[in-house]
Amino acid sequence: MLVGTVVGNVWASVKDPTLEGLRMLVVQPFTTGDETAETIVAVDPLGAGIGERVLVVFGRAARHCIGKGHDVGFQTAVSAIIDRMDLEDGRTIGPVRAEDT
Amino acid sequence: MLVGTVVGNVWASVKDPTLEGLRMLVVQPFTTGDETAETIVAVDPLGAGIGERVLVVFGRAARHCIGKGHDVGFQTAVSAIIDRMDLEDGRTIGPVRAEDT
Amino acid sequence: MLVGTVVGNVWASVKDPTLEGLRMLVVQPFTTGDETAETIVAVDPLGAGIGERVLVVFGRAARHCIGKGHDVGFQTAVSAIIDRMDLEDGRTIGPVRAEDT
Amino acid sequence: MLVGTVVGNVWASVKDPTLEGLRMLVVQPFTTGDETAETIVAVDPLGAGIGERVLVVFGRAARHCIGKGHDVGFQTAVSAIIDRMDLEDGRTIGPVRAEDT
Amino acid sequence: MLVGTVVGNVWASVKDPTLEGLRMLVVQPFTTGDETAETIVAVDPLGAGIGERVLVVFGRAARHCIGKGHDVGFQTAVSAIIDRMDLEDGRTIGPVRAEDT
Repeated sequence: MLVGTVVGNVWASVKDPTLEGLRMLVVQPFTTGDETAETIVAVDPLGAGIGERVLVVFGRAARHCIGKGHDVGFQTAVSAIIDRMDLEDGRTIGPVRAEDT
Repeated sequence: MLVGTVVGNVWASVKDPTLEGLRMLVVQPFTTGDETAETIVAVDPLGAGIGERVLVVFGRAARHCIGKGHDVGFQTAVSAIIDRMDLEDGRTIGPVRAEDT
Repeated sequence: MLVGTVVGNVWASVKDPTLEGLRMLVVQPFTTGDETAETIVAVDPLGAGIGERVLVVFGRAARHCIGKGHDVGFQTAVSAIIDRMDLEDGRTIGPVRAEDT
Repeated sequence: MLVGTVVGNVWASVKDPTLEGLRMLVVQPFTTGDETAETIVAVDPLGAGIGERVLVVFGRAARHCIGKGHDVGFQTAVSAIIDRMDLEDGRTIGPVRAEDT
Repeated sequence: MLVGTVVGNVWASVKDPTLEGLRMLVVQPFTTGDETAETIVAVDPLGAGIGERVLVVFGRAARHCIGKGHDVGFQTAVSAIIDRMDLEDGRTIGPVRAEDT
């Protein structure tokens, strides 16, 4: 379970039928240093936009969030859109990254 | 299963309903070198505070620790607050990081 | 769940019987920086070609995509062939990598 | 499943009740280069000591090794104490690290 | 699921009883750059030798490959011995690493 920033959208027409109609986002995991270059793809049931910070879950939790049962061709999902994140170093991070606001 | 330091709090109002009322912490995994910049988010049923070291578990173990069943939108949780960690290099690490005490 | 580029094919004759007749691809995960050197192997039911970008899933989702039940000797599969990926930095990435087109 | 060296002990009094009475070790994963700084925590049913090399397993395998059923607040365990590891570069590694013997 | 090179053998006498009689290999994951220093341990039902490239699977797939049911103290196994791997950069990789042949 991690916090990441939405950095892109993904479209696919040749795909497992259970992905039909689902929105797929590219998410870059948050670190306390710089953001990493690694990305993950998450199905998003909440309508998160580019630049927003989201909570990403995996496996059974992801299937729960999408609500299409357990026989599905995805295992990563957005389970929350972050309002605010306070870090011990005094930084307060809102839903949209500091450099965008 | 890993030990990490609590470095922040996360709030979200748009979220999977099963996250309602749960406390979410940002945790930075412990290493024998410096602490990494990578962070994870864990649901905390034990009341850990900023700077405390906690044991973080994933998947089925995390769902067990929270006790809301297996149809939930999270898969990482705090399962213990560390009192003490002794390392072979002679370091003894208490619940709060050395540099904070 | 991640997006990666198909960079190779794998053949094996000594293998778990459930791998019989399945196509195995070497996939290199996409990052927003350079591509990493790490690779994963995925069973491909969709016919993706070298240079195409694919969505890779793991565990139960992978078993679902292949449709041979849950008693199988693989746990990674291609669940979609990416048509297009838009990133916030303005890059648009098609199914085949930019340097190949 | 990985081989690692036991580098420390962990104690916690505020914890999930299923951790009661279990011994927790800090384990540093083995690599063919230098040892990494990353550590994991594993429940140990075998009595491994500091400096010994152990086999660490995750998830269902870890729950099996501890034998307290599947509703537990841990998911990493020691499943073997390594007697000997032979590497292709001619190195033979015993249960205790070379630099300690 | 990944391709790796067998680089060693592991022996343990103090271990979970379900590991009795199983062959354990040290495997180094393949990358398109240099090989990493990270290693994993896999139970091998196929008789792979040092220097051979193998397909390694995790979790339920690993338990399937070994065929001792799901109450076992391991979760990584060899599911295939690679005959040949063709990469887009023109490299063809046989079962034994190029530098060994």
